[in-house]
Amino acid sequence: MSLTLYDVTVPVFIRAFGNLTEILKKGEAFADEKGIAHKELLETRLVDDMYPLISQIQRASDTAKFVPVRVGQIENIPMADEEVTFADLHARIEKTVAFLNSVNSATMVNREDAEVIVKTRSGETKFTGKSYVLGFALPNFYFHVTTAYAILRHKGVPIGKMDYIGRSQ
Amino acid sequence: MSLTLYDVTVPVFIRAFGNLTEILKKGEAFADEKGIAHKELLETRLVDDMYPLISQIQRASDTAKFVPVRVGQIENIPMADEEVTFADLHARIEKTVAFLNSVNSATMVNREDAEVIVKTRSGETKFTGKSYVLGFALPNFYFHVTTAYAILRHKGVPIGKMDYIGRSQ
Repeated sequence: MSLTLYDVTVPVFIRAFGNLTEILKKGEAFADEKGIAHKELLETRLVDDMYPLISQIQRASDTAKFVPVRVGQIENIPMADEEVTFADLHARIEKTVAFLNSVNSATMVNREDAEVIVKTRSGETKFTGKSYVLGFALPNFYFHVTTAYAILRHKGVPIGKMDYIGRSQ
Repeated sequence: MSLTLYDVTVPVFIRAFGNLTEILKKGEAFADEKGIAHKELLETRLVDDMYPLISQIQRASDTAKFVPVRVGQIENIPMADEEVTFADLHARIEKTVAFLNSVNSATMVNREDAEVIVKTRSGETKFTGKSYVLGFALPNFYFHVTTAYAILRHKGVPIGKMDYIGRSQ
């Protein structure tokens, strides 16, 4: 037995989005209980020039989608980053998870050494399937999920690390 | 070709500790430049009841070490959590990386279905090697590394996400 690039990403992302959904629900319930405007929570940043909560979820969504897109050469479903409410974020997560659930794991087999080119504003970076997943996509995904958690924690939402990790294994 | 539990953890942790070392150096240089006491930076927390920077590094170290210990059944090298300076943190990271470098990857082969029991204050949690690595150790490791980054970012240290991701692939 061993692991494929699919095993270490797609089901992992789906699980993390499940945890994130619960964390966002706790954030919304907390805002309602304390009379905090949803908009205030959704636009909170840990640091002035870091992304707000909404963008952290958008970036986690894109990071997750791009793994099967780039490694499995599946067509992306672009999402327009137009979320403004908690309901919008839940819809974004649901669409992302539906996309991830639609991935045929076979497309991601034997892609460890395949070339993966990531184009950004600062130029192109060449990865292999393996270095892209392990050295970019996974740390980037967890960066955004952890930062979303930290933003809500910072605003006083009663969540703990086990909400981030998830209880069911 | 496929991946082992070793591939998706030990080299990944070693790389992340290299990035973390550079991030901590930038934090120390920033403190010196701005006349901020090292102790102030090292004891900063994102939220009052979250761990300070020093503990984030200690928890990342333990999380990384426990993967080969629990999955590969290698003897742990316990570390006493007595770090108080940047130099201490660098020494902790170096010892952790030396331990990770000493791991024989063969000990972590075919351990995906092996039972892994994690004992905490709140009881025992049973994992498989695979669920422990993918559903606990990796998200927990990135949680602490991201939070260490966010603490320094919050204090004004001039770092960006590429310092966290790392430039070399």
